[in-house]
Amino acid sequence: MENIKSYVQQHKDRFINELIELLKIPSVSADAAYSQDVINTSEAVKISLEKAGCDFVEICDTPGYPIVYGEKIIDPSLPTVLVYGHYDVQPADPMELWTSPPFEPVIKKTDIHPEGAIFARGACDDKGQMYMHVKALEYMVQSNTLPCNVKFMIEGEEEVGSKSLSWFVERNQEKLKNDVILISDTGMISNQQPSITTGLRGLSYVEVEVTGPNRDLHSGLYGGAVANPINVLAKMIASLHDEDNHITIPGFYDNVQELSLEERAEMAKAPFNLENYKKALDLNDVYGEKGYVTNERNSIRPTLDVNGIWGGYTGEGAKTVIASKAFAKISMRLVPNQDWEQITELFTKHFMSIAPAGVTVKVKPHHGGQGYVTPIDSIGYKAANMAYTETFGVPAIPVRSGGSIPIVALFEKELKSKTILMGFGLDSDAIHSPNEHFGIFNYLKGIETIPLFYKYFVELSK
Amino acid sequence: MENIKSYVQQHKDRFINELIELLKIPSVSADAAYSQDVINTSEAVKISLEKAGCDFVEICDTPGYPIVYGEKIIDPSLPTVLVYGHYDVQPADPMELWTSPPFEPVIKKTDIHPEGAIFARGACDDKGQMYMHVKALEYMVQSNTLPCNVKFMIEGEEEVGSKSLSWFVERNQEKLKNDVILISDTGMISNQQPSITTGLRGLSYVEVEVTGPNRDLHSGLYGGAVANPINVLAKMIASLHDEDNHITIPGFYDNVQELSLEERAEMAKAPFNLENYKKALDLNDVYGEKGYVTNERNSIRPTLDVNGIWGGYTGEGAKTVIASKAFAKISMRLVPNQDWEQITELFTKHFMSIAPAGVTVKVKPHHGGQGYVTPIDSIGYKAANMAYTETFGVPAIPVRSGGSIPIVALFEKELKSKTILMGFGLDSDAIHSPNEHFGIFNYLKGIETIPLFYKYFVELSK
Repeated sequence: MENIKSYVQQHKDRFINELIELLKIPSVSADAAYSQDVINTSEAVKISLEKAGCDFVEICDTPGYPIVYGEKIIDPSLPTVLVYGHYDVQPADPMELWTSPPFEPVIKKTDIHPEGAIFARGACDDKGQMYMHVKALEYMVQSNTLPCNVKFMIEGEEEVGSKSLSWFVERNQEKLKNDVILISDTGMISNQQPSITTGLRGLSYVEVEVTGPNRDLHSGLYGGAVANPINVLAKMIASLHDEDNHITIPGFYDNVQELSLEERAEMAKAPFNLENYKKALDLNDVYGEKGYVTNERNSIRPTLDVNGIWGGYTGEGAKTVIASKAFAKISMRLVPNQDWEQITELFTKHFMSIAPAGVTVKVKPHHGGQGYVTPIDSIGYKAANMAYTETFGVPAIPVRSGGSIPIVALFEKELKSKTILMGFGLDSDAIHSPNEHFGIFNYLKGIETIPLFYKYFVELSK
Repeated sequence: MENIKSYVQQHKDRFINELIELLKIPSVSADAAYSQDVINTSEAVKISLEKAGCDFVEICDTPGYPIVYGEKIIDPSLPTVLVYGHYDVQPADPMELWTSPPFEPVIKKTDIHPEGAIFARGACDDKGQMYMHVKALEYMVQSNTLPCNVKFMIEGEEEVGSKSLSWFVERNQEKLKNDVILISDTGMISNQQPSITTGLRGLSYVEVEVTGPNRDLHSGLYGGAVANPINVLAKMIASLHDEDNHITIPGFYDNVQELSLEERAEMAKAPFNLENYKKALDLNDVYGEKGYVTNERNSIRPTLDVNGIWGGYTGEGAKTVIASKAFAKISMRLVPNQDWEQITELFTKHFMSIAPAGVTVKVKPHHGGQGYVTPIDSIGYKAANMAYTETFGVPAIPVRSGGSIPIVALFEKELKSKTILMGFGLDSDAIHSPNEHFGIFNYLKGIETIPLFYKYFVELSK
């Protein structure tokens, strides 16, 4: 497939500019202030799919943000690839830490990306990786090399739990019928060493509220005499881990899939340098569950992290107040076999039970999803590996990721097909952080690799 | 002194309207956004003192907000009363909890204030109580009954630690020379039972910062593998109290003045109803240091409260992030004999020492002040008690307050004179909270009582 290389070379400036236009729209699904921008982004995605060569594209209304569906059916007897991606992005704050505005994309060179990287919120997660598939389709249509049917399902609520997607998938199983699901919303080890994510962690995300007195109080007149909701919340959060950083919620580990020493030895082979890891994060030391190394702590082990906390006076200067309420957003990363709804129940039950007299506690589940493992002996995995091997010159390494794409488990349940996670981002791309970026190399390499997946998948399916 | 009663009756509408005008200026010293308003308030106070009859008034520049100084010297051989008050106010947030805008004063009737109360930030703390002294002077000048010399020192940084006041007092000891210092910045038990605050708690106020990774991280990819600054901060805060709610900072209690059982029995006589206390705050239970009752926990015992906490994503919806930093504002209320600077050192040393590997910790002292006890056998205390007894019909009860007026200790050190705390506010006036208010009854009763203090203080000084 030499043509794809030359096609990419010939059109790369346009590919980059089209992506930059898409990145300019602040489609932050978590913040209602951006709702019109999220809608506008779905329109832009629809148009891009039509231009790329889909025969049919529609914007499907849902209880939440719309889902863009597109398809090109060349022969019902041929296999069908369903491409999933999302056009919404994470909130950009803290804004002040961005070296350039999050929604004014610029290309800058970095040590890891000497050919330059596009800096913008969503560059890698997931507008950039999603758009690789749109451009790959364009190539296959233009060069008349599309070997099978293709369907696109691009949603706008991935960063807030994909609620409407589940609703949509449950109601459109026939329309979404496919032989394999292809997603680029993960990373790879390095630009020299491709990898395919074979495992994902599940997620349970909750928000807690601790209420003490019915109003903010003067800390001098009441300090020491009433429960301070912030002190109490801190105490409750602290108690969720023991001294070995095991999570203390009763039953939390009951269904955790323990890996064999062999499997852990296999994992240990993935290139990893602890010193570089600490250096990259300016950490004097790592931290985590006793008995596991860093690569295990962030992939095969469940975790509990506070993602946000707030209460009392947080402005300039000093205010001697005892707040009436304190809040925290808490998420738990789960491993295969842990059921997120059950874990959410266990958390809620436990958190309510440890509330001391003098406060009332509310737990509001936000969203969640199951963990997932992809079999490496599937046709889809093999086809992806062959594609990477051809474009990168080395085979891909299977890795377990700590991240969550809850809908992968949903797809298997509702659509009865396997998902292949062909990620082209890097850990250093700062997704969910200030200065998110996506390498030009990675973007173009993705466009180059995807058509090969189609080719090999169809060949192996025969 | 029947005249004062009738004078107040005759002029009360004007007294109320003048205070309302003063309350309209948002003099929030903690927030630089209001700096011009703070300055404007000092101008308004200057004019009010001139109108009330001071012979000399000046706005004194300081490293921070100006101090308004005024005086009326009728005879150097007579005693001199120094009136202290502050024209700055606490921040008004959370704004949404105010039933009327904090800087648009309105008079509303309440169960406790059937004659109405002025609702506005600063109504009680301290503009209303400070202005009682201005109007009391007006009466004494108009009625030619001022029995001694009077000096006013009204500052604009009380809510942020009175830094400039210390600077000013140290440099103006001759100018501020006095025989007694009179302050109305505290409360009394009820409108039927006046009380005089004889003890105050000291204060140490710090801000802490916990830094983990050098940037916000994706909680899926890094969760479990790096120290989460919010989880760590929660753990550190939780460890500052033991199971009995004793503070765990080594040396914290070393200089705490333990009261005798007799003294505690005396305190227990002050009217207090735990059920009403809980009901007023919608609490199912109180909370605090083991071995002490509510009235002791908030007065004779030192405390540690988090006044504000923030970190990570606190916006709408969910963001799966591990924050780079987490922050908290922490204040400790101290009792007589605890030195606030030493306690600040002990806190800092201890807090740094409990930081786990994987994070770095900063502690920034905000401000502080010493505790204080007023002897009830002093002329000043006796004069105040006689004044209350005459206007309320019952003697005042001496009480220890949990609040802090750090400068009271400073005054004794620098000016070698005792302070009398003639408070007319009520605990229910919600100072430092939304819907702060000050009873019309209390305001007018204060104006009526103050001249009597002057009368008896001069008589007892002979």
